[in-house]
Amino acid sequence: MAGLPRNSAEVRAHLPGGRLAVGEDRPMRLDCGLELAPFAIAYQTYGRLNRERSNAILVCHALTGDQYLAGAHPVTGKPGWWEAVVGPGLPLDTNRYFVLCVNVLGGCMGTTGPSDIDPATGRPYGLAFPVITVADMVRAQKLVIDHLGIERLFCVIGGSMGGMQVLQWAASHPSQVFAAVPIACAARHSAQNIAFHEVGRQAIMADPDWCGGDYAVQGKNPSRGLSVARMAAHITYLSEAALHRKFGRNLQNRARVTYGFDADFQVESYLRHQGSTFVDRFDANSYLYITRAMDYFDLAAEFGGQLVNAFRNTPVRFCLTSFTSDWLFPTHESKAIVQALNAVAANVSFVEIESDKGHDAFLLDEPEFHRTLSGFLQGSAELIGLDR
Amino acid sequence: MAGLPRNSAEVRAHLPGGRLAVGEDRPMRLDCGLELAPFAIAYQTYGRLNRERSNAILVCHALTGDQYLAGAHPVTGKPGWWEAVVGPGLPLDTNRYFVLCVNVLGGCMGTTGPSDIDPATGRPYGLAFPVITVADMVRAQKLVIDHLGIERLFCVIGGSMGGMQVLQWAASHPSQVFAAVPIACAARHSAQNIAFHEVGRQAIMADPDWCGGDYAVQGKNPSRGLSVARMAAHITYLSEAALHRKFGRNLQNRARVTYGFDADFQVESYLRHQGSTFVDRFDANSYLYITRAMDYFDLAAEFGGQLVNAFRNTPVRFCLTSFTSDWLFPTHESKAIVQALNAVAANVSFVEIESDKGHDAFLLDEPEFHRTLSGFLQGSAELIGLDR
Repeated sequence: MAGLPRNSAEVRAHLPGGRLAVGEDRPMRLDCGLELAPFAIAYQTYGRLNRERSNAILVCHALTGDQYLAGAHPVTGKPGWWEAVVGPGLPLDTNRYFVLCVNVLGGCMGTTGPSDIDPATGRPYGLAFPVITVADMVRAQKLVIDHLGIERLFCVIGGSMGGMQVLQWAASHPSQVFAAVPIACAARHSAQNIAFHEVGRQAIMADPDWCGGDYAVQGKNPSRGLSVARMAAHITYLSEAALHRKFGRNLQNRARVTYGFDADFQVESYLRHQGSTFVDRFDANSYLYITRAMDYFDLAAEFGGQLVNAFRNTPVRFCLTSFTSDWLFPTHESKAIVQALNAVAANVSFVEIESDKGHDAFLLDEPEFHRTLSGFLQGSAELIGLDR
Repeated sequence: MAGLPRNSAEVRAHLPGGRLAVGEDRPMRLDCGLELAPFAIAYQTYGRLNRERSNAILVCHALTGDQYLAGAHPVTGKPGWWEAVVGPGLPLDTNRYFVLCVNVLGGCMGTTGPSDIDPATGRPYGLAFPVITVADMVRAQKLVIDHLGIERLFCVIGGSMGGMQVLQWAASHPSQVFAAVPIACAARHSAQNIAFHEVGRQAIMADPDWCGGDYAVQGKNPSRGLSVARMAAHITYLSEAALHRKFGRNLQNRARVTYGFDADFQVESYLRHQGSTFVDRFDANSYLYITRAMDYFDLAAEFGGQLVNAFRNTPVRFCLTSFTSDWLFPTHESKAIVQALNAVAANVSFVEIESDKGHDAFLLDEPEFHRTLSGFLQGSAELIGLDR
């Protein structure tokens, strides 16, 4: 059985990057009706904020992402999750833009979440942490933006759950967002996606080491359950074609099947590895809370049941992208958003990228996708006078 | 925590239907190289075998199916899994055909599997049961067919893993099969499907009550792990459209979300129900063994790596069907089989049925599918002189 994750409370207390501490005197009201205080928001920045504070790009991360976009990750040592996109000369050019990413509320990379100490009890929150929403995540990000004195973001961008946050930003703070780039996402979580999340949560909760959410207090970690949750989710991030191309029915270091339950097939070995490395860096309760926030996301419901109401008279310029083989957030989900934006005559462009890499395509080497990002950002920069 | 399944050893010993006991003197050699003896094969029949013994239809069941096709199930009390297809006046017309279904080797509904007593130790096999293959399942079925004195099956039919068995029958015993109907299946299990199976197995094995496979001896049952496995698998049996149509984002007996981890959404409640009822009727080790048999299925590999070799000079008449929304066994898998059959000039028809019900469509009310079955069987019956 695996021990405690490398991403422990002690490690989290010394993570590199910015940290905004919000005191007890400034509680944040959450969608659930509860107030959160005190709490901390961890973020990382790349590039320099210009004098006018007009070149900021807020990157919103996905379910299991974090604020470390590029460079070696302080916990895993691996490259940042958007290394291909964020950096000098890359689509999110750090010679030009000030790129900022905030660990989401409920997360486990420095921003307050269920693994942190509940000041009311002096013990980790566990399930005493309030259930949060995508809108709550955006509220926390807004505090950081205000703290940095940024009146308007040049761009808010993100994929998957990050795209949900982008949509929420555009809907909640249209005058503070110049351009919005929601990637491979949806305006509401589908029944099938809720179902996959529920499987993951049940896998975690079925692990006796979850201890009703109190594993930190008990000195345990539901790593088996979290690993199964990650394995199930990981399949949904890929595509049948990508799995076939990468693994097919290839065997793992053996000439023939062993007639047993070892990882005979490469795809089994790969999945097990995905599960076992994930538990080192991610907190099981954070996984519960963040998946729940995604399930609850339904932007139209916040605006009287009509998605168009979320965007009426919006000044925001939108660029949406989806990927042909993404079956977690298929193209029709992006098209529904584009239709709502068209219905209110918003400024919107949409590109469906041909790719067999599935949902994870937005994290990978996809030249057409990167050209789309570069082109849209360049055009937007010219409009706002950032190219001077 | 759930107790022992209703489908206990005592219940299994008194199941209705036929039972072929194979003695220690007639060991069956398995693909893994081991021999199995003694063992029992449980089956159920519907309709009457005619004097010529020429009207037998062998139905091969899927992963979690069993021999009870129609009528109240002796363990669950629910209707048989092919109630819509097997019966008087239905496509598999029991006024006309002798319909037979055999619980697969490794199963848990009367045929010997890992939950049965290992004569070598006097205790349940657990992981001491040999790993079996689809070809081994067919070997066991063949013993029943021989026992009943049936020289040639009028038809072998089945969906999903049942379809794999149909293909194996046609390839291994072409002269003993007049017509073959593989439904919603593939000639080999895909990387994505192996991946989903591996998630289910890891969920079971992660449950401490699995006890390394020895739960029966320890008086335990890994019901939480098996339930998670079933939930994950169940999603793959449906389609995004079906889940959206049936559940969408509807809430379960509540007006608004509860900001918690209860089953707020109907789709969550439905999935949990699927998991919890499954563990009452199915054995966790059987789930491991049968999923493994499917993973190992690769008909071409048995025939020198070329699927055409499996069917060269085949006298069997084939009818294949797939369903447009089935993403577990998509249409391209059936087409690959049709292409191999065409390449050897076999007698083959193929129909892709328009349906939004996903893989499970073959179990449900699909009039076009049922018309296809009736038509093919009627034509085949006329050819063989069964209509007289």
